[in-house]
Amino acid sequence: MPGKIRVTVWNENRHEKTDPRVAKIYPRGIHGAIAGFLEEDQGFEAKTATLDEPQHGLSDSVLAASDVLIWWGHLAHAEVRDEVVERVQRRVLDGMGLIVLHSAHMSKPFVRLMGTSCLLRWREAGEKERLWVVEPGNPIADGLGPYFEIPREEMYGERFDIPVPDATVLISWFAGGNVFRSGCCFLRGRGRIFYFRPGHETFPTYYQKEVQIVMKNAIRWAAPGVGPEMHLGQSEEPLEKI
Amino acid sequence: MPGKIRVTVWNENRHEKTDPRVAKIYPRGIHGAIAGFLEEDQGFEAKTATLDEPQHGLSDSVLAASDVLIWWGHLAHAEVRDEVVERVQRRVLDGMGLIVLHSAHMSKPFVRLMGTSCLLRWREAGEKERLWVVEPGNPIADGLGPYFEIPREEMYGERFDIPVPDATVLISWFAGGNVFRSGCCFLRGRGRIFYFRPGHETFPTYYQKEVQIVMKNAIRWAAPGVGPEMHLGQSEEPLEKI
Amino acid sequence: MPGKIRVTVWNENRHEKTDPRVAKIYPRGIHGAIAGFLEEDQGFEAKTATLDEPQHGLSDSVLAASDVLIWWGHLAHAEVRDEVVERVQRRVLDGMGLIVLHSAHMSKPFVRLMGTSCLLRWREAGEKERLWVVEPGNPIADGLGPYFEIPREEMYGERFDIPVPDATVLISWFAGGNVFRSGCCFLRGRGRIFYFRPGHETFPTYYQKEVQIVMKNAIRWAAPGVGPEMHLGQSEEPLEKI
Amino acid sequence: MPGKIRVTVWNENRHEKTDPRVAKIYPRGIHGAIAGFLEEDQGFEAKTATLDEPQHGLSDSVLAASDVLIWWGHLAHAEVRDEVVERVQRRVLDGMGLIVLHSAHMSKPFVRLMGTSCLLRWREAGEKERLWVVEPGNPIADGLGPYFEIPREEMYGERFDIPVPDATVLISWFAGGNVFRSGCCFLRGRGRIFYFRPGHETFPTYYQKEVQIVMKNAIRWAAPGVGPEMHLGQSEEPLEKI
Repeated sequence: MPGKIRVTVWNENRHEKTDPRVAKIYPRGIHGAIAGFLEEDQGFEAKTATLDEPQHGLSDSVLAASDVLIWWGHLAHAEVRDEVVERVQRRVLDGMGLIVLHSAHMSKPFVRLMGTSCLLRWREAGEKERLWVVEPGNPIADGLGPYFEIPREEMYGERFDIPVPDATVLISWFAGGNVFRSGCCFLRGRGRIFYFRPGHETFPTYYQKEVQIVMKNAIRWAAPGVGPEMHLGQSEEPLEKI
Repeated sequence: MPGKIRVTVWNENRHEKTDPRVAKIYPRGIHGAIAGFLEEDQGFEAKTATLDEPQHGLSDSVLAASDVLIWWGHLAHAEVRDEVVERVQRRVLDGMGLIVLHSAHMSKPFVRLMGTSCLLRWREAGEKERLWVVEPGNPIADGLGPYFEIPREEMYGERFDIPVPDATVLISWFAGGNVFRSGCCFLRGRGRIFYFRPGHETFPTYYQKEVQIVMKNAIRWAAPGVGPEMHLGQSEEPLEKI
Repeated sequence: MPGKIRVTVWNENRHEKTDPRVAKIYPRGIHGAIAGFLEEDQGFEAKTATLDEPQHGLSDSVLAASDVLIWWGHLAHAEVRDEVVERVQRRVLDGMGLIVLHSAHMSKPFVRLMGTSCLLRWREAGEKERLWVVEPGNPIADGLGPYFEIPREEMYGERFDIPVPDATVLISWFAGGNVFRSGCCFLRGRGRIFYFRPGHETFPTYYQKEVQIVMKNAIRWAAPGVGPEMHLGQSEEPLEKI
Repeated sequence: MPGKIRVTVWNENRHEKTDPRVAKIYPRGIHGAIAGFLEEDQGFEAKTATLDEPQHGLSDSVLAASDVLIWWGHLAHAEVRDEVVERVQRRVLDGMGLIVLHSAHMSKPFVRLMGTSCLLRWREAGEKERLWVVEPGNPIADGLGPYFEIPREEMYGERFDIPVPDATVLISWFAGGNVFRSGCCFLRGRGRIFYFRPGHETFPTYYQKEVQIVMKNAIRWAAPGVGPEMHLGQSEEPLEKI
């Protein structure tokens, strides 16, 4: 039997400290809530890391011991040090999975791995979101119905300025008239990245069952395999007589 | 612990009956050789079916009890009855995995699922093939090195007239000067299809370790999930007040 | 200066004969309306063909003289003869562009070229549709704004059971709560296929400016190039000494 | 009639100054040779820019007046200033085409737009390269045969650590036993990027007819369209009553 998937849940953890509404919804922080529901599943071993820890809690040894990194950030993207961003990027290219949540679409690691602006339309109106499964054969859709709803969420709308995803699993409908590619898979290096839209800090989104199903499926999908290491960039001898 | 993946290995089984060279390499048939190495793995339960059985061995109940179907054919594509082809297609769209081997690029189920001619260049010269991993993060590459070689194989070369694959895992180099997309993933309906190039009947290709690794990885990748059933094609009530 | 793009507009032309509402909106038929706005553009030469003509108006010589074929059908998909369907498929694989409109998602040529069921959710409620551009760099989006609206349309909703498109240009929002990939590019053989969702027969959709812009862009995109002919399927001599 | 496509050919221009072999092959520099064959075509207006010019010859006004930028670099990637790299990236995301040649796979603009290491295998042995067309329907293959050969080139081999291309048009076979995705399309923002492998400085590759055909096709493909500007990143009013 394979061992547990080792997940590090990273959170900026600023809203929780400054906004009582957020602190009330997530008394242990968004990271604590996510680690909490992961720990209830036998398949995962979850730790947390936050911006204000030394090295943002993401030392080389922490990353080396992480199969999958989850990232939530919003207010303080600019405070994340570039050396940590580079470390995360290198580790993803080397195989670590990365789950990018909600406003982390503008986080430094995601923007750097995408190469685009990652901008989008947005609106804070607490409107209804309905997420439709467009790839029912994708393992990230396992256990879902044809769609699920989140009663109140921030709106994110297209154009979402990302590279064409390697798979688009979910597309959102918003009451205010917008659509959005809400569940997007990207392959980068030997690593797998999943962007998942929901999770505004003022709504209890991460307690919702379907949201947790998607996140657990995504972690399993993103966990590294044992594909070949490539040792690229060095001069090679010919394999055939030239 | 999840149960074993139920694999049905389908083979035309004609070369084995008429060509002593093939019978010598594959005394139990190509299907028998494949089922043999699968059965040695705890994760698989393998059965076989062949063209000359009633319904080609692919009744509704056999297909319903198959998580993944493997298909090898060459001489007798035209003898496969259209009703069986439709049954296979429907079952794939409903989630059954399909592994299409070598000359089955022209098999009726594959051609029908692709919608293109599926033609290619070919040459029977027994030349060297080297298969390069181009997506080391794809689970079908797990356990491989950067490339592997097959000492003697039939050549298949580009242009291979298929839709753009949803993932291209392997590209072959041939001594005679050709290249080929040798390991191609396709998503169709809720099903996953993998085309794998090697396996000419006059060479012992399916006994080679790396070939077996790829096939076992591909079966695990293609095994059905539990994504939503969609009940499409019927008139819907609105979900919102119009 | 390159010559005009030769477009054949094919229409089932049955609703127009039996439903006075449709005849009133499209007195010259849907095909006549489409050919009409194409003829106003210097870049196109448009002819029409309909189901009830001999060979459905699609003889070998008509197809050979068509750079792009547009297809509208709904009631009578089953009446289209298989030999004509095969002819259309072959011609697309050989390079002819194909624009598939609205209910032609279930037309025989499209279903055959896709290899999937092509089923979807639908609802006839005359609701608002808003089409969002998700790939602003795609030439099919030239001249559009970030989105456009159709005041009343039939709803088509996900899951749309198609292969993953080679490009998804437009995603629709529907007032009743659904989303849909409304502008999808597919490459098949040497041909380019564009599926475009709008066009229910009881609404004047094909008179709308943005709909016409998309269709003209799609025709230009789908018009054949002069890429290599491949002469596949025959045994080859080695290009290198083996 | 649309105007000429304005192309800026950027070259590091160092080998030409220090290596007499290169100076002999490209007396006007690689940039001069490329601009030369483009200028012979009525469709293009070509200018050049090099590393040692102020701002590397790539001021805001030069980029604003460039429909497509061609980039050749090798020895001095590190000398390209980050502010110019950011300027190029922004302009590509805003719609300017970018053609990345040979060793520019490690150039700062390309690496930043890809988000991956862009490393590969390589060998300087002056071996034969044969480039196979795998997408004959792609406009970048217009005017080619099924393959073309370059008598002597540096080898680049897989794994090429790039995101999955949005289209793979050419795959190379090398005499020494390697394969490579040699013609790759990427969509980023509203811009189109084409990576084209050939062009080692010690061989007269850019004088070869087929290489020039590919480059001219790629420029036409990459030239910007007039798709919607998106004005992303700002709060939006709802389009529907919530």
